[in-house]
Amino acid sequence: MKAVEFKDQKISVVDVPVPEIAGDEALVKVMMAGICATDMELLHGYQGFEGIPGHEFVGFVEKAPGAPDLVGARVTADINVGCGDCPRCRSTDTRHCPFRKAIGIQGKNGAFAEYCAVPLANLRFLPDNLETIDAVFAEPLAAALEIAQQVHVHQQTRIAVLGDGRMGQLCALALDLYSRRVTMLGRHREKMALAAARGIATADIDETAGGGAAAHWKGAFDLVVDATGNPEALHQALALTRPEGLVVLKTTSRQPSPLNLAALVVDELTLLGSRCGDVGFAVKCLADQRIKPNFLVDRIYPFSEFPAAFAHAAQQGSMKVLLAFED
Amino acid sequence: MKAVEFKDQKISVVDVPVPEIAGDEALVKVMMAGICATDMELLHGYQGFEGIPGHEFVGFVEKAPGAPDLVGARVTADINVGCGDCPRCRSTDTRHCPFRKAIGIQGKNGAFAEYCAVPLANLRFLPDNLETIDAVFAEPLAAALEIAQQVHVHQQTRIAVLGDGRMGQLCALALDLYSRRVTMLGRHREKMALAAARGIATADIDETAGGGAAAHWKGAFDLVVDATGNPEALHQALALTRPEGLVVLKTTSRQPSPLNLAALVVDELTLLGSRCGDVGFAVKCLADQRIKPNFLVDRIYPFSEFPAAFAHAAQQGSMKVLLAFED
Repeated sequence: MKAVEFKDQKISVVDVPVPEIAGDEALVKVMMAGICATDMELLHGYQGFEGIPGHEFVGFVEKAPGAPDLVGARVTADINVGCGDCPRCRSTDTRHCPFRKAIGIQGKNGAFAEYCAVPLANLRFLPDNLETIDAVFAEPLAAALEIAQQVHVHQQTRIAVLGDGRMGQLCALALDLYSRRVTMLGRHREKMALAAARGIATADIDETAGGGAAAHWKGAFDLVVDATGNPEALHQALALTRPEGLVVLKTTSRQPSPLNLAALVVDELTLLGSRCGDVGFAVKCLADQRIKPNFLVDRIYPFSEFPAAFAHAAQQGSMKVLLAFED
Repeated sequence: MKAVEFKDQKISVVDVPVPEIAGDEALVKVMMAGICATDMELLHGYQGFEGIPGHEFVGFVEKAPGAPDLVGARVTADINVGCGDCPRCRSTDTRHCPFRKAIGIQGKNGAFAEYCAVPLANLRFLPDNLETIDAVFAEPLAAALEIAQQVHVHQQTRIAVLGDGRMGQLCALALDLYSRRVTMLGRHREKMALAAARGIATADIDETAGGGAAAHWKGAFDLVVDATGNPEALHQALALTRPEGLVVLKTTSRQPSPLNLAALVVDELTLLGSRCGDVGFAVKCLADQRIKPNFLVDRIYPFSEFPAAFAHAAQQGSMKVLLAFED
């Protein structure tokens, strides 16, 4: 089968055998996949990943020896694969298993390929009314929904989402399910217009700055989400948060962020890291049409044009780039 | 009266009028005061403070026109003085009032002086059985106790306190009230022996390091308190914390800390700033003899030797330096 391989910080499109599957796995024929900022990080050495990336995808179950009824089902997947045996997997969940693999990210090949092996327990089934172009956002949407599963967000919670890119948009839509007071702070008029068209308040992030935050904006939010991808944004995120408020970090960067400890200590702020969420819950929100993320798609490339698609996705400011597989 | 004044990053001992007190204030004759790391920061420009510092103290009420019964009472004080009128003061507490003053720290003279003006509402009364040399620790002990008032700490919570200095010792003792699994990680054998003599487990902080944390120690704690005063310690604190665990920051430094956002995000850690606590609660713990901090005293200087006392307190590794006022 055709597959994309990351190795030594290089991308190649290679011909490799269709993956062999274990008894508790399904072979999924990939229909559509999304390129994510994490893929850029992986290419540059994050997690020491080598192999086939791709962790946002929709496909059909082609084979499932352990569950033959599933053949033909349209699916996406939860990407964390725990060992199943450690205290963490036994007591809570597999997302933080110290021995975990993650499809397309860590120790397990992903979906930038014609076929992908997925543990049966990780399959998430897509109802017929859910379009593939929306369903392919289930994994990043789950990461956005994760915030309100980690902390209590209610109708009156004053929320700022910093960043108007892909993750900022998804976070704003996800939090808008819970709070009527979400403001996106961004730098790109046309991107903020996308959020505004979906009922999200917006403001120019630079107008909220000034020694951290302009006077009017200082401490104006209970919860600030940093989805900028920029390690410098943390300083402003802290300044926008009220005393005893919360900053949620969705930015993973190889650069360290300069953190002013005194600001955190004096105002007794909380800084919370937030990673993957529950893909099954994201599928439910998508199936209910509560969130329709397809407006975030910049362009769909055929899989054979992967290098061009990847270059497009790597451009500063690009929105979601998708890959479509031919039948 | 004699008083210490900080101005232009210089210390002087000056002769100034006894403070005039408002109707809702008491004039407190200072008996004993402690020098704190925050005083060092204030001298070097933190909070833009100018005036009389000193925020850890015990004294007698000398005058209290609004409450004459209080004259003669031995007291310490809660140092935060809110405006009383803003939504924050009306709804929650004064510690985070945006217009607050803090005795000896922000906008209000402190206790490195023969007399100090203290709002009646801030007085905390000391029972007879509580020795002054212990009671003078009420303010920093309150800051240590604050941790278990911000977050749920129980008997089984695995806690590491980084730092064997004054704040590390108080945090370890305060958390030992709640958890049977407190370990102090320090670098000074004789200081760790002080904690060990009080039932706290100890370990050499450098033996827990190695790419952040040595394998055996990686993620070994539910809660890690950074009380090192060293902005570089944050990296190790994160490495010692289990996934979805908590790092509490007691370190305020003018230096920014380099923060690895990816570590925080991937393990979904929480970083929580922690400042002042409830001095009244600290007095209760001291009065019950549950904590007796006087073992932390390095030396007591007469107030007239303030510059020598301050130089002593500023030495790397010094423990608590106290000032005693003559009758």
